[in-house]
Amino acid sequence: MTDAKAGGTREIGTGVVDLIGVLAYGELSAFDRLAEDARTAPTLSGRAALASMAAAEMGHYGLLERYLAERGVRVEDAMRPFMRHVDAFQDSTAPRTWLESLVKAYVVDNLAADLYRELAGVLDDETRGLVVTVLADTGHSAFAQREVAAAIENEKPLRDRLALWSRRLLGEALTQAQYVVAESDGLAELIVAGTGDLSGIAALFRKLQQQHTKRMQALGLG
Amino acid sequence: MTDAKAGGTREIGTGVVDLIGVLAYGELSAFDRLAEDARTAPTLSGRAALASMAAAEMGHYGLLERYLAERGVRVEDAMRPFMRHVDAFQDSTAPRTWLESLVKAYVVDNLAADLYRELAGVLDDETRGLVVTVLADTGHSAFAQREVAAAIENEKPLRDRLALWSRRLLGEALTQAQYVVAESDGLAELIVAGTGDLSGIAALFRKLQQQHTKRMQALGLG
Repeated sequence: MTDAKAGGTREIGTGVVDLIGVLAYGELSAFDRLAEDARTAPTLSGRAALASMAAAEMGHYGLLERYLAERGVRVEDAMRPFMRHVDAFQDSTAPRTWLESLVKAYVVDNLAADLYRELAGVLDDETRGLVVTVLADTGHSAFAQREVAAAIENEKPLRDRLALWSRRLLGEALTQAQYVVAESDGLAELIVAGTGDLSGIAALFRKLQQQHTKRMQALGLG
Repeated sequence: MTDAKAGGTREIGTGVVDLIGVLAYGELSAFDRLAEDARTAPTLSGRAALASMAAAEMGHYGLLERYLAERGVRVEDAMRPFMRHVDAFQDSTAPRTWLESLVKAYVVDNLAADLYRELAGVLDDETRGLVVTVLADTGHSAFAQREVAAAIENEKPLRDRLALWSRRLLGEALTQAQYVVAESDGLAELIVAGTGDLSGIAALFRKLQQQHTKRMQALGLG
């Protein structure tokens, strides 16, 4: 990813460029997913809610694009190496129902937030501030949580199906995340630095898994 | 549309509720259209540009929703009567190419801006301020204009096809707009009040047509 740097006025490490690049493409890709899922909404207000979530992703995308541009990096160059892994995740987890869409939005948003929270310690103040802003809870998670909780109440078979779905989402996300880290030396170094340990990557993924499990239990999908 | 009013704290006429309702559903529908068209973008930056345009529509939608809510009107109720006409317009003008998408985004945004500008005179200050904000040029038109202008330079057959396309867009938009006005007494009264004339509706549509023609000439599609 060093070729993505071109006369930037501020210093930026390749690990950070890659981190922001994955995050940016994740936002663009989430926009796509949510916009498409909005069409399957059973109500007009559900449709508007998902469309608004999608719109929020593009607001974040704009912040990330500006951050990179100020450092002489084109967001397209930063995203490109990671597109196929993010696309592979989306393709392998295309929701078939409205509730699957909501569970996916909820799971992925929180997983991304956890991941970046774990890495916050190794980022400089400005980058950390950006990441925190981009991953701040916009209240959309609460919408998904409320809808899902209402739908699964007293519906054991549905709850079981969605619990299975949430485990599959986690598995596919971690699989693609591993590919991403394997292909970016800078990102791997960042994680090792953040966790202070050579076994840091495996430990990080275990931690994400535990947080996911706890969250699913709270949602009634544990 | 009077049933959409339910204990609002501020006065609002049915014509204004209908006007804001059409505008709100137009935004939600444009979000859908732009999000879908973003997938056909030939470049990653074009994809992000259209996704950002789509996101901006939802920002406007949120403003309209809040405006109605403050007056005791649910945005869903205000939009519902006009959904099928807006949907009919979108269905009859689904773009088949990236350039058709851009021409459509450009034509529709400007047509809507013209329409609301013509009606601004009959709106109270607060409503007028809202409409102006929602229809303010966000620089997205400039993007579409630039891309289209570059594409048609020295490409007469392409230019002719897109000129035909822009005429079809105008025709379909005015057809559906006529249905909308025919079904909303409040909206018809608003237009007559705004143009001060019983023949106001026909005159308004003629004016929109003229402004469209001028704009297409400026774009090289006249």
